[in-house]
Amino acid sequence: MRRLDIAFTPAGVGEGLHGTATVVIDVLRATTVIVRALDAGAKRIIPTLDPEDAIRVRERLGRDGVLLGGERNAVRIDGFDLDNSPASYTPEIVGGATIAFTTTNGTRALQRVANAGASGVMCAAFANLDAVVDRLARDERAHILIVCAGTDGAVSLEDTLCAGAISAGLVLRDPSVLLSDAGRAAALLYSGVREQLVEAVASGDHAQKLAAMGFAADVVLAAQRNTSNAVPLYSDAEIT
Amino acid sequence: MRRLDIAFTPAGVGEGLHGTATVVIDVLRATTVIVRALDAGAKRIIPTLDPEDAIRVRERLGRDGVLLGGERNAVRIDGFDLDNSPASYTPEIVGGATIAFTTTNGTRALQRVANAGASGVMCAAFANLDAVVDRLARDERAHILIVCAGTDGAVSLEDTLCAGAISAGLVLRDPSVLLSDAGRAAALLYSGVREQLVEAVASGDHAQKLAAMGFAADVVLAAQRNTSNAVPLYSDAEIT
Repeated sequence: MRRLDIAFTPAGVGEGLHGTATVVIDVLRATTVIVRALDAGAKRIIPTLDPEDAIRVRERLGRDGVLLGGERNAVRIDGFDLDNSPASYTPEIVGGATIAFTTTNGTRALQRVANAGASGVMCAAFANLDAVVDRLARDERAHILIVCAGTDGAVSLEDTLCAGAISAGLVLRDPSVLLSDAGRAAALLYSGVREQLVEAVASGDHAQKLAAMGFAADVVLAAQRNTSNAVPLYSDAEIT
Repeated sequence: MRRLDIAFTPAGVGEGLHGTATVVIDVLRATTVIVRALDAGAKRIIPTLDPEDAIRVRERLGRDGVLLGGERNAVRIDGFDLDNSPASYTPEIVGGATIAFTTTNGTRALQRVANAGASGVMCAAFANLDAVVDRLARDERAHILIVCAGTDGAVSLEDTLCAGAISAGLVLRDPSVLLSDAGRAAALLYSGVREQLVEAVASGDHAQKLAAMGFAADVVLAAQRNTSNAVPLYSDAEIT
């Protein structure tokens, strides 16, 4: 019997994730960007907590083939090559590159689960929904934990919806997977709005803030399902 | 502009609730029982963390007119007058009585918000859904926090559904109330299953456990909406 649980914010993550199949979601926008960057041919993504750490990664690896990406307050960091907009991560720009990447919520969530012992952490978004479900269906670990990055410590609607989409999809694939009540709630939530997903995602706090800042296209793009077959894995401090 | 947020478990409750309109939900079964007990004519309910504390309340107040109620592992505590089954709280038994009351999740959630400075805490369940919405609509405090008791520290489906029902109901009454993403998620969840509420509540972990222990009728009863106009208030360590 396999069991799936959801942490609606990283604060809800316990310790001892060594044997747990762990998924991190930050739909707006880190995991959407990560999926896009790898699809566009990026070699690897090295998430860092701070912009300074990203700069140090580039100093360590050399400038050649290393790009700095990410955001603070949703916009590109001074001196960085890339912001946190998935559309910026084109094959022309990121093909073959290592990206040192820092965002407000997503990279913190990755760090949190890594500190709790998780390895081979899957990065999930609507963009790679079915690919993640497929990977989880073939994974044999008894416990699955989906961690929503949330927004500044609060629950975020779009991450909760995506966690629900994965939960609902996995139970459909393998009815023997037992959902926790958090999993049931999120799966029911997603099932109720799956035909109006763009509208639901756009109604969230973070989406409204991004739209007001001119990133409405990113919100629509982040709500598109299955544009990618990639399942980015975070291990040993890098995502490939 | 009034703002409504939800804590899906008591662990998500911050400090400084002095000015916040606070609602505690434990559908299975503490707040359902509390509503029922006051409707049945109980004078007051004194929630305590431990059975021993409940016994001490009775020693302090005298045996006359004081009943002991509550559960551990869902069943009546040895030497107690009442279990945690709403059906047990009849006018014949609890009319005029003070009830010293201890349950696993509900009383802990009440204690948690009281320690965080909340006063006049509303006890909510499906039984008094519209009455709580009405009270919140007339409340003028700028912040509303709904705290789900959850089950043993985990998110519970039935409390999340009830929090969503209150959120959806309040926004309908007063569209100027701004929901957090947690509020939006729960309101959408409830709206999707409102016509199958008994089935949704019954699918939760705690409901399944109660049904297996012979309390299936309590689950059905707890999913009935608006059987009461009472809004029990927790202040100064007692509920009236």
